[in-house]
Amino acid sequence: MEWLQELQGIVGEPNVKTSRAQLAAYSYDATAGFQSAPDAVVSPASTEEIAEIMKLCGRFKKPLVPRGSGTNLAAGTVPTQGGIVLLFNRMNKILELDMANLCVTVQPGVITADLATFVESNGLFYPPDPSSMKISTIGGNVSENSGGLRGLKYGVTKDYVMALTAVLPNGQTIQTGGKLAKDVAGYDLKSLLVGAEGTLGVVTEITLKLIPLPRTQKTGIAYFTSLEAAGATVSEIIAAKIIPATLEFMDRGTMDAVEQFMNLGLPEDAEAMLLMEQDGDEDAVERDVNQMIALARANGATLTAVARSTEEAQRLKAGRRAALSALSRKRPTTILEDATVPRSELAKMVRAIEQIAKRNQVEIHTFGHAGDGNLHPTCLTDSRDLEEMARVEQAFAEIFEAAIDLGGTITGEHGVGEMKSPYLEWKIGPQGIELMKVLKQAIDPDNICNPGKLFAKSTKPRVVLHYG
Amino acid sequence: MEWLQELQGIVGEPNVKTSRAQLAAYSYDATAGFQSAPDAVVSPASTEEIAEIMKLCGRFKKPLVPRGSGTNLAAGTVPTQGGIVLLFNRMNKILELDMANLCVTVQPGVITADLATFVESNGLFYPPDPSSMKISTIGGNVSENSGGLRGLKYGVTKDYVMALTAVLPNGQTIQTGGKLAKDVAGYDLKSLLVGAEGTLGVVTEITLKLIPLPRTQKTGIAYFTSLEAAGATVSEIIAAKIIPATLEFMDRGTMDAVEQFMNLGLPEDAEAMLLMEQDGDEDAVERDVNQMIALARANGATLTAVARSTEEAQRLKAGRRAALSALSRKRPTTILEDATVPRSELAKMVRAIEQIAKRNQVEIHTFGHAGDGNLHPTCLTDSRDLEEMARVEQAFAEIFEAAIDLGGTITGEHGVGEMKSPYLEWKIGPQGIELMKVLKQAIDPDNICNPGKLFAKSTKPRVVLHYG
Repeated sequence: MEWLQELQGIVGEPNVKTSRAQLAAYSYDATAGFQSAPDAVVSPASTEEIAEIMKLCGRFKKPLVPRGSGTNLAAGTVPTQGGIVLLFNRMNKILELDMANLCVTVQPGVITADLATFVESNGLFYPPDPSSMKISTIGGNVSENSGGLRGLKYGVTKDYVMALTAVLPNGQTIQTGGKLAKDVAGYDLKSLLVGAEGTLGVVTEITLKLIPLPRTQKTGIAYFTSLEAAGATVSEIIAAKIIPATLEFMDRGTMDAVEQFMNLGLPEDAEAMLLMEQDGDEDAVERDVNQMIALARANGATLTAVARSTEEAQRLKAGRRAALSALSRKRPTTILEDATVPRSELAKMVRAIEQIAKRNQVEIHTFGHAGDGNLHPTCLTDSRDLEEMARVEQAFAEIFEAAIDLGGTITGEHGVGEMKSPYLEWKIGPQGIELMKVLKQAIDPDNICNPGKLFAKSTKPRVVLHYG
Repeated sequence: MEWLQELQGIVGEPNVKTSRAQLAAYSYDATAGFQSAPDAVVSPASTEEIAEIMKLCGRFKKPLVPRGSGTNLAAGTVPTQGGIVLLFNRMNKILELDMANLCVTVQPGVITADLATFVESNGLFYPPDPSSMKISTIGGNVSENSGGLRGLKYGVTKDYVMALTAVLPNGQTIQTGGKLAKDVAGYDLKSLLVGAEGTLGVVTEITLKLIPLPRTQKTGIAYFTSLEAAGATVSEIIAAKIIPATLEFMDRGTMDAVEQFMNLGLPEDAEAMLLMEQDGDEDAVERDVNQMIALARANGATLTAVARSTEEAQRLKAGRRAALSALSRKRPTTILEDATVPRSELAKMVRAIEQIAKRNQVEIHTFGHAGDGNLHPTCLTDSRDLEEMARVEQAFAEIFEAAIDLGGTITGEHGVGEMKSPYLEWKIGPQGIELMKVLKQAIDPDNICNPGKLFAKSTKPRVVLHYG
């Protein structure tokens, strides 16, 4: 095949995989229910090689699907229309740490946690911390605009991207941004590429802003016998003008699963848990954590604790950290969603999820980032049971509808991918879809870059929710 | 004229101005050397009226030029191709302060300083503080992605825009974003519109993120007998992991002008001044300001002071505040630029500006935001002297070239407008220009929205600098 020979010519034969086993390995990501084999898997070594691959894809009309570590939860990295999967395993270097301008320049294949550890060893801090960070790549984080636990206080990936090099669908390479706190030279191309899920080009080099590492951090925890009490505590923390570093939530079902898994001795009567962390200067951290715990108690928290050491903090955090693993053990298929609402609507949203699960007779438990309203309703199911899966799909449609009704969004940090594309219009309206299609068509007229993602063949009809 | 009658029909006759005097009043902004009268000036009252005006402009191929208070410094709000100037004087309301989600929703015509005062009276903080904030509108700030003194620590306007309503060139209205800390539902349309200088549509409603008001702030000042000592101090402040709220700079020439204007008793031997502010919790603020002053002294600062009261702080800040007014008094025409470099290159850039001014025999003094590398080389000249103006233009071309050479940008916070459009390619390259043109053409195929801005008929040839 001509295209394959050319591809081998660009990157060298050992860097193109086409065996059945290898194609199968890249036929899925972390999303249940999506699988499709690519025609080839390629590992380029440079921006220049990626530009050549892009031109080749343009000539042969081959889809190009960039992939980090495949932790995507919306089928964003499944090559659903075949084509070439682009890996960054040979572009995984930290290129420069600039201590004078507090930034780091990396290739896309660097593992997020490795970057975090590296900059922390230099007294600096890269705050975005998606739960997949031990596996995920920075390139994937940039393409998905990944969030994490620290979103409320520190923002998300896009807030740290200072400069990008990217290869466009026309084969041209652009540099956008710079080591600059301020730059208004034309349209914000950088923000357009961040979170575009690889549909507008391939990001090949990234400069990330760093900040000084906080001097100290402190962890507290509170258990509540009602969801509403936990929700009120979240609201009152914000009203007290405290912006915690993290403010994490687990519901009853998630805690049950964690307790079965880990025997941490979580209180049996708790309906909700809040894990609170603050970082910064010692006095302020002490004051904020104490005040958050006091607000929890005033709202009827039955049990509270503040960690007095790093080890104690690790113990308090262990339950929340294990939430997804603990839930995943219970049924063959786990579907983790990320409907997000204004933080004032947290308790309402969790209640809505409970009712939706009950009505559709599916098992959904919720944990997530209470501080920024980013919830992870997690469905435990079995993808082989088509009848149950239909109910699961209906339940998630209702969850997205509820999030939109409350002023929220269908995805806070996972992306749209192919899985959520039939719901995108619910959030951004037909005018928003039209504008996004105009952009995609203008930049990628042949639909080479990650086709089938973001834009659905048809939008799902909206569901009507029956509250109360 | 049919279009005029229709326009009057949309907004009511009293809200359309067409007298010669009125058209003359909107024929220029704060940029020297640009003037062109519009065909009409219109004051709509709602998003719906703006959508109707946009459709009218589309049918009659009339340029539509949105304008806040006309403080633009790059001719971004001059109707250089005629058409309709769109004012927001009837859309100037603060619509909602949401204390639970820490955000405020406003119409574009709200004056920036009024918004800041309003939210501060509620214990909240809107950090972006462009120098024009007493006159400028939030809508103008959003369209220009305005910066200010607090850019390094707090970011710029785009970092605070949570949601926008905008009317697109096709007459459709979109809502993008939400009261959400996390939202990855499709392309970041919000960031595309922020800083687009009105060339992709008209922003008609804005939701801005707020943060808790810092508990305290403290101001220090240091004078240096060499520019390099001031530059080294800036670098060492950052290297010490201090991120000051503001870190302002004035050169010798600016201080001379301020002293002539105000008789503050500034030291006569000083080559450079740094004004340092920190805000936050009391202990941390105290520590940071003391450490910054200590670093200044270690670098040979000849005079330092720390304000012990708000009044003293005001006195220390008075000189920097008066910089532009003091300089403007000296010659008939003042041209204020905003070349920006990585902060590590500050001293090099100021030296380059000095040499460029000397070589071209023009008077340029520099002040600006040292913390984020955003300098304001300010040329004192006379726009009636064409021979001198040619030298001024050459000097600024060389300044832009120097900024680019040092990894910087042609504009940190003022925008490109029409004035800097011939230099945009220097920053973003021909591929960047091509991509921006593709976006503009796709969204505004008839070039209705603020035509002639961003994209120049031709790019200036790059100049070659002779250093040393």
